Amino acid sequence: MLNENEKVIADKIRQLKQTSGSHSPSIYSLISEIEGFEIAIDACFLSNPYATDLFMRYFKEEVLNQNKLRGLLEFYPTQNRPLAAILSSTLGVDPECIFLGNGATEIIQTILHRFTKKKLLVTLPTFSPYYEFARSDTEVIFYTLDKRNDFKFDPDAWLKIVKKEKCDTVVLINPNNPDGGYLSQKELRTLLGALKEVDQVILDESFLHFSSEDSSCKLISNLPLLKEFPNLITIKSMSKDFGIAGIRAGYAIMPKEKVKELLKNGFLWNVSGLAEYFFRLYSTKQFREEYEQIRIKHLQGTQDFFKQLNAIKGINVYPSQANFFLIELPGVSSSEVALELLIRHGIYTRACDDKKGLEGSFIRIASRTPQENMKIAHCLSQVVSSHAKDPLFSTPM
Amino acid sequence: MLNENEKVIADKIRQLKQTSGSHSPSIYSLISEIEGFEIAIDACFLSNPYATDLFMRYFKEEVLNQNKLRGLLEFYPTQNRPLAAILSSTLGVDPECIFLGNGATEIIQTILHRFTKKKLLVTLPTFSPYYEFARSDTEVIFYTLDKRNDFKFDPDAWLKIVKKEKCDTVVLINPNNPDGGYLSQKELRTLLGALKEVDQVILDESFLHFSSEDSSCKLISNLPLLKEFPNLITIKSMSKDFGIAGIRAGYAIMPKEKVKELLKNGFLWNVSGLAEYFFRLYSTKQFREEYEQIRIKHLQGTQDFFKQLNAIKGINVYPSQANFFLIELPGVSSSEVALELLIRHGIYTRACDDKKGLEGSFIRIASRTPQENMKIAHCLSQVVSSHAKDPLFSTPM
Repeated sequence: MLNENEKVIADKIRQLKQTSGSHSPSIYSLISEIEGFEIAIDACFLSNPYATDLFMRYFKEEVLNQNKLRGLLEFYPTQNRPLAAILSSTLGVDPECIFLGNGATEIIQTILHRFTKKKLLVTLPTFSPYYEFARSDTEVIFYTLDKRNDFKFDPDAWLKIVKKEKCDTVVLINPNNPDGGYLSQKELRTLLGALKEVDQVILDESFLHFSSEDSSCKLISNLPLLKEFPNLITIKSMSKDFGIAGIRAGYAIMPKEKVKELLKNGFLWNVSGLAEYFFRLYSTKQFREEYEQIRIKHLQGTQDFFKQLNAIKGINVYPSQANFFLIELPGVSSSEVALELLIRHGIYTRACDDKKGLEGSFIRIASRTPQENMKIAHCLSQVVSSHAKDPLFSTPM
Repeated sequence: MLNENEKVIADKIRQLKQTSGSHSPSIYSLISEIEGFEIAIDACFLSNPYATDLFMRYFKEEVLNQNKLRGLLEFYPTQNRPLAAILSSTLGVDPECIFLGNGATEIIQTILHRFTKKKLLVTLPTFSPYYEFARSDTEVIFYTLDKRNDFKFDPDAWLKIVKKEKCDTVVLINPNNPDGGYLSQKELRTLLGALKEVDQVILDESFLHFSSEDSSCKLISNLPLLKEFPNLITIKSMSKDFGIAGIRAGYAIMPKEKVKELLKNGFLWNVSGLAEYFFRLYSTKQFREEYEQIRIKHLQGTQDFFKQLNAIKGINVYPSQANFFLIELPGVSSSEVALELLIRHGIYTRACDDKKGLEGSFIRIASRTPQENMKIAHCLSQVVSSHAKDPLFSTPM
């Protein structure tokens, strides 16, 4: 339980949370607004920590040590179109089909505003911008994953809604956030085959680098699907798999007429100097080869983390094909557990009280390094068992 | 004149220019696409070089030396709304009236898309996004500054167009780009008083820190006008006066209902970790006091540069209240002069051939440090006089 001092901090965190809407307050906000506050493990942010290490190593060697930082900060960055040309061979896609964004969120926002018309189908629970940023004249239809069915996506039930509502835009996040549910390439192909009447199918692949369809852990690519289905748009955040959310980098692949329509309306210098450096680095074979090793390392560490979490008594951990786990805490308040993990142990997790479509007490925990994962599992076990004993902090079963 | 080797480089630059639309290719593009190419002086980018020095000093002390860089690049930045709260006391404005942008261009784009309705009035020549990014159902009306009248803005003629066309949005860039023309606070107040029927008056103050209404060089503020006229929106790029275009930072001040409308539609993490650091730095008194000194230093250096340029024979330098000068090169091709300055002398300037509303041969040159300005004036004088003698490279008078 929190003591008096800790309760003061908890109140401050709740206030910061209020200014952050349906998202978590930033690390920077937390540590700069709360004196002496420190975060030891960020298990709220869904990133591969080894990838941040890798990026920082290159950044130090190629930018800081070469005195190139000033140039990246001082001068106008390269425009969207020539940057797409640089990424083209890396992605194996015509440059005219690539649109670069100031993070994936900018891309989601603009697709919903420019291309979606009357009806948008979104799965719940999900990443909230997919419905929060819909146009006021767009009706958002929800397909809700069922807890009783382990949040499993039901293609037939979902397709029935698409047809019945005549949705012009449908969103598939694969793996899904916050549950990590996954549709295989085979399942996706079948689904897409039944979606030919839909204007655009948005496939958000921001967590795809954390998935594996077999023990080889081979990188899965939606490229064959993009070639086959002209109504498909893939959106990819670079924040998670490359661990660089502060840089704001993402891209989408879509038909060239759509890219043209977007660039006619702006997005001139929406990619910063640092994001440009990242995309140029990503377009080198050497970086990608090194990245591939640490991608697999993180994927395997995440699989081990599942086993550790699954061994904790009194919680339900849902299977995930992403690098995070949705955890149900029956009889315990998730926001209290999250606050105690944060204030007492310095572990930042995501209480899911405000996640639309998620009824009950859930937290989402990201996989970090093996040492950090061990500490997270240990502290979570401790906090949950102490809360479970205290009727004051319990929620009804 | 260019020799054979130099002509090869000139062709490569022309190709890069083609991919950049109505803007200049980035420095990064130029140096990474053309082997061995170096830029000694960037007089294309309209920034205060001392401000970049100042920012870099703080960045080194507070970020690099304190091992805080990784945090800025790795984690999600703070959202728009809490960042506005941090800027509020610095700007002296209610946080609900502040909207932060991924550079001013993002703000221009979104205002034109969300608030402008049928008719938009833009002055020519100007910063092209103001008409390029207008909605397809918005009619852009142009008011063209007259070269024969030294590009002077005529309030009566302009107001006549506003009334006749019933424009719902009008744009005033003060000082204007590319000519540096300036409307005093008194002139602006009179104009705004006659614009009460207009839905929104966009006042772009991105170059205002380079202006002075008297010898005191005191910082001019549009805040009193914002308090007086509820249809006024000010837009401010931080790229120029703070010399940090690569970071992408800008803000707008507008009625709170408008900010609310924008945030309802996105712009969640549109300010990167580095831009957040800049805004936090800008909100400290110490930084602003040091900035004020170098702002005045650059302003005075720019006034000296005008005298040097004005002394060059065969060119017309237009008076400017910004940190750049529009220069007419009668009888000489501006693109040839710009290419020769760049390839032979490493001086990057802006040939204005593609500037809509600017007929004739013009280049725009930014003021840099006194040493650099001296070199620019010297090389320009040399190039212009050599071109003037060669009929092959001349344009008709």
